[in-house]
Amino acid sequence: MARIAVVAGDGIGPEVVAQARKVLDAVLPDVQATEYDLGAARWHRTGEVLPDSVLTELAGHDAILLGAVGDPTVPPGVLERGLLLKLRFAFDQYVNLRPSRLWPGVAGPLGNVKPGEVDLVVVREGTEGLYAGAGGSLHRDTPAEVATEESLNTRHGVERVIRDAFARASRRERRKVTLVHKTNVLTHAGSLWARTFDAVAAEHPDIETEYQHVDAAAMFLVTQPQRYDVVVTDNLFGDILTDIAAAVTGGIGLAASGCINPEGAYPSMFEPVHGSAPDIAGQGIADPVAAVLSAALLLEQLGHSESAARVNAAVAAELASRVPGVTLRTEEVGDRLAAHAVA
Amino acid sequence: MARIAVVAGDGIGPEVVAQARKVLDAVLPDVQATEYDLGAARWHRTGEVLPDSVLTELAGHDAILLGAVGDPTVPPGVLERGLLLKLRFAFDQYVNLRPSRLWPGVAGPLGNVKPGEVDLVVVREGTEGLYAGAGGSLHRDTPAEVATEESLNTRHGVERVIRDAFARASRRERRKVTLVHKTNVLTHAGSLWARTFDAVAAEHPDIETEYQHVDAAAMFLVTQPQRYDVVVTDNLFGDILTDIAAAVTGGIGLAASGCINPEGAYPSMFEPVHGSAPDIAGQGIADPVAAVLSAALLLEQLGHSESAARVNAAVAAELASRVPGVTLRTEEVGDRLAAHAVA
Ligand SMILES: CC(C)[C@H](C(=O)O)[C@@H](O)C(=O)O
Ligand SMILES: CC(C)[C@H](C(=O)O)[C@@H](O)C(=O)O
Repeated sequence: MARIAVVAGDGIGPEVVAQARKVLDAVLPDVQATEYDLGAARWHRTGEVLPDSVLTELAGHDAILLGAVGDPTVPPGVLERGLLLKLRFAFDQYVNLRPSRLWPGVAGPLGNVKPGEVDLVVVREGTEGLYAGAGGSLHRDTPAEVATEESLNTRHGVERVIRDAFARASRRERRKVTLVHKTNVLTHAGSLWARTFDAVAAEHPDIETEYQHVDAAAMFLVTQPQRYDVVVTDNLFGDILTDIAAAVTGGIGLAASGCINPEGAYPSMFEPVHGSAPDIAGQGIADPVAAVLSAALLLEQLGHSESAARVNAAVAAELASRVPGVTLRTEEVGDRLAAHAVA
Repeated sequence: MARIAVVAGDGIGPEVVAQARKVLDAVLPDVQATEYDLGAARWHRTGEVLPDSVLTELAGHDAILLGAVGDPTVPPGVLERGLLLKLRFAFDQYVNLRPSRLWPGVAGPLGNVKPGEVDLVVVREGTEGLYAGAGGSLHRDTPAEVATEESLNTRHGVERVIRDAFARASRRERRKVTLVHKTNVLTHAGSLWARTFDAVAAEHPDIETEYQHVDAAAMFLVTQPQRYDVVVTDNLFGDILTDIAAAVTGGIGLAASGCINPEGAYPSMFEPVHGSAPDIAGQGIADPVAAVLSAALLLEQLGHSESAARVNAAVAAELASRVPGVTLRTEEVGDRLAAHAVA
């Protein structure tokens, strides 16, 4: 039995999560889902972001499926720091996994890249760096104001995510890992990342490695996304690079992510990269593919590789059959995907 | 008379700088150029990066024209921190100006973007943020190692670069400024940037404004680069975004930059965004356009707007006339540009 906590959230969150659940129910016989009401709506109603009791309950699940939280009227940081990052940190989800594929049938924005040619995964560190919340300010709202943000990096945190990246690469066909950082400017953290990378690489002589500065990687993701297999990088760089990777493979409507605690000491969390998209919420036209692909990552993490593969195959068929210009209906896509995944 | 310090540097640096000087000599009658030997070659030979005496001499010039410095055998940070960033900080070059245009004749990588449609300028902060060099490490090379990098942001530093961005927008046709930051995670620095932006915006009711998170901006630079006019952002975000902007407008072979001290208290510095490209150095095939466009920014900064416009027109003609597949010769391109700029 898989005990899944479902945080549908705001905007299109509930619409796409409903489809992901349809697909999960189709491929796994014994999903026990519990819904948690978290996000902008709850915050507006009650002022609560993530009560401790809810955090404790969430910890008792095998995985969390999240739609999207937020709306433009919530002040920046409230839900990000109080809910999303809180969960990533509390559940030690140090592997933020973001695969990008240019699926056959999807028209990407790059003229010279053909479907099937891009198949990369970014292993983004999820519990350190500039996301640590180590910042502050003095003399606020005066001409003397100073504000700081500190990037905290530990050998412990860096090594474990790099090890995860190499482990993933060794299970993939191309067996290549690219480290992305900015060692020429961020010399202290950069050196820690580079030395740790080299040490782990030495244990994997069969895996090809390369290093790129983050600015160069941002450029190459646009000009030659085909060159990447596994990319490992820090929390903030990973945030930016994965949106570029999503953009060149057809947009965040298709981008899945997993916030993973590989040891399973805590539940991992799976969510589409897209946000709550208030502009199209309630119209039934959001693309549920990113949520469904996130559910596939969830299945993979819980050991149901075969079910995950069937969901991915359903998505591949769905995308290959899309006719440009035809508006999709969220529900119908979910129905098709669920049907295909069990066929 | 314009006193220009020339740092040709390493690799293709001298090759492209020679063309930029040709063009400068053609449009300005009285350029007095002094060459400074700085970069990887000098470091290998003497161990010196930037002697104090050279820094003092550079300060006596009206502007600095730089080619590219570095080679793969110099440890990361030596030339970046010791030379490039040292100059940006010592000369208070707080406006790092990086225009991107998709020039007619240039085939960008984006299928749905036509030449002429992209014309943006990133105003990247140049003297603060994560580039401040405020980091350190403890327990190096042990399992307990921790490394930090601190982003330092002052109202002083943030306000002056935002003011510069609005001033530039008010001289452009579309009159729009986009602030890019990550206010939802970097809440302290983000709040300083956002409040300062709003305060300056209130003084410019005629200028359209928008805010985007850096991950969203990275994505939109790929999917809709046409939407940007002036983008203002911090030092690290600007580093990454300008490489994306370069990628979508034909590559860093065409990307110019100026490290500007707008008040003229210190010399400003102009350099192509590309590096020393050791792989093609010495072959006479480097594209000098980025260096020549950097020279145009230099002319603009020194008040020679008309000459700058002529150089830009020469570049436009050059790019429009290029035949795909024909290898360009650095010297010949320089000759053509110089001839066209005076015609
Ligand atoms: C919402 C925000 C905190 C988050 C992040 O920056 O990690 C988002 O951009 C993402 O990529 O998941
Ligand atoms: C070489 C490096 C220090 C520099 C930077 O990061 O600013 C470069 O990438 C640039 O963009 O000018």
